Amino acid sequence: MRILGVDPGTGIVGFGVIDSIKGSKNMIDAGVIRTPTHQPTQECLLTIYNEISEIIKLNKPDVMVVEQLFFARNVTTAMGVSQARGVILLAGEQAGLRLIEFTPLQIKQALTGYGKADKKQVQEMVKMQLKLAEVPKPDDCADALAAALTYAN
Amino acid sequence: MRILGVDPGTGIVGFGVIDSIKGSKNMIDAGVIRTPTHQPTQECLLTIYNEISEIIKLNKPDVMVVEQLFFARNVTTAMGVSQARGVILLAGEQAGLRLIEFTPLQIKQALTGYGKADKKQVQEMVKMQLKLAEVPKPDDCADALAAALTYAN
Repeated sequence: MRILGVDPGTGIVGFGVIDSIKGSKNMIDAGVIRTPTHQPTQECLLTIYNEISEIIKLNKPDVMVVEQLFFARNVTTAMGVSQARGVILLAGEQAGLRLIEFTPLQIKQALTGYGKADKKQVQEMVKMQLKLAEVPKPDDCADALAAALTYAN
Repeated sequence: MRILGVDPGTGIVGFGVIDSIKGSKNMIDAGVIRTPTHQPTQECLLTIYNEISEIIKLNKPDVMVVEQLFFARNVTTAMGVSQARGVILLAGEQAGLRLIEFTPLQIKQALTGYGKADKKQVQEMVKMQLKLAEVPKPDDCADALAAALTYAN
C-alpha cells in the first residue's frame, strides 16, 4: 500500500510518500512545497493545490493521511492553515484517495508509544522506521512522513 | 463590472452575482450551495469547489468578493469555514478573478453607514439597492450579495 502523508501549513507544506508492504516500510518521495512570504493567499493556495495534485499524479498513492488541526491560541494561523488544508483535501478527493486524519497525539503514540513524546523523539522514529541515514529535513517533511507511518503501523 | 460575492460556510455557501454599471446595480444570479450534514469533509469541499467553478464559468465575473473571517470563540467552526474558503479562493484564482476581501464591519458600514447595524438592516439595504421585491433568502445568500454590493459602492 502506498501512503501519502501531508503536513499542511501556510508558508510551507510537508509531504512524504511511503510504501508499506508486509510490515516493510520504505520512503518513496518526500519534501516540502514552499510559497513566497508576500504572495497573496489565493496564489499560495493555487501553488499548493497544483503541487499536491502533481505529487499525487506522480506517486499514485492509495491513501492520503493529514494531521488534524488543534489550535487553542492563534485563530488567525489556524484559519490560514485550514485554507491550505482545504485545497489539499480537495486534491485528494479529486484523485479518489481515501482520507485518513490523525490527531497529533495519535501520531506521537503510534510512533513512540508515548503521547507526550517531543518532536525529536518522533523524528528519530521516522528515521529508524524508514531506515534513513538522517532525520528528514525540514520538520514539515518529517511530520508528513510521521503521519504516513502512523497509518502504516 | 460583474461582481461575484461569496459567503463561505461549511454546510452552506452563499453566492450572489451583480452587475454594477454607472452606479446602477442589478442582481444577475444568487443562491446557495448546500452540502449534506453527514457528508465527509473532503466530499463537501469537492462539491463547493465544483459548484463555485461552475458559477464562475456561467456568470463570468470580473471580481470575487469574499468576507474575511473573524472568529473569537469557536475555533473548530473557524477551521471548517476556512477549509471551504480555501477551495473558493482556489476556484477564483484558477479563473483569474481579482480577489477582494472585506471585514464584516466594512460591509455593514458600506451598506448602512453604520458599523453596528444588525443583519436585518443590512439585508434591507441589499433588497433596496438591488431593487428586489423581497429580502433574498437564506441569510447566506443575502450576505454574499451584501459583500458584492460593498465592492460596487
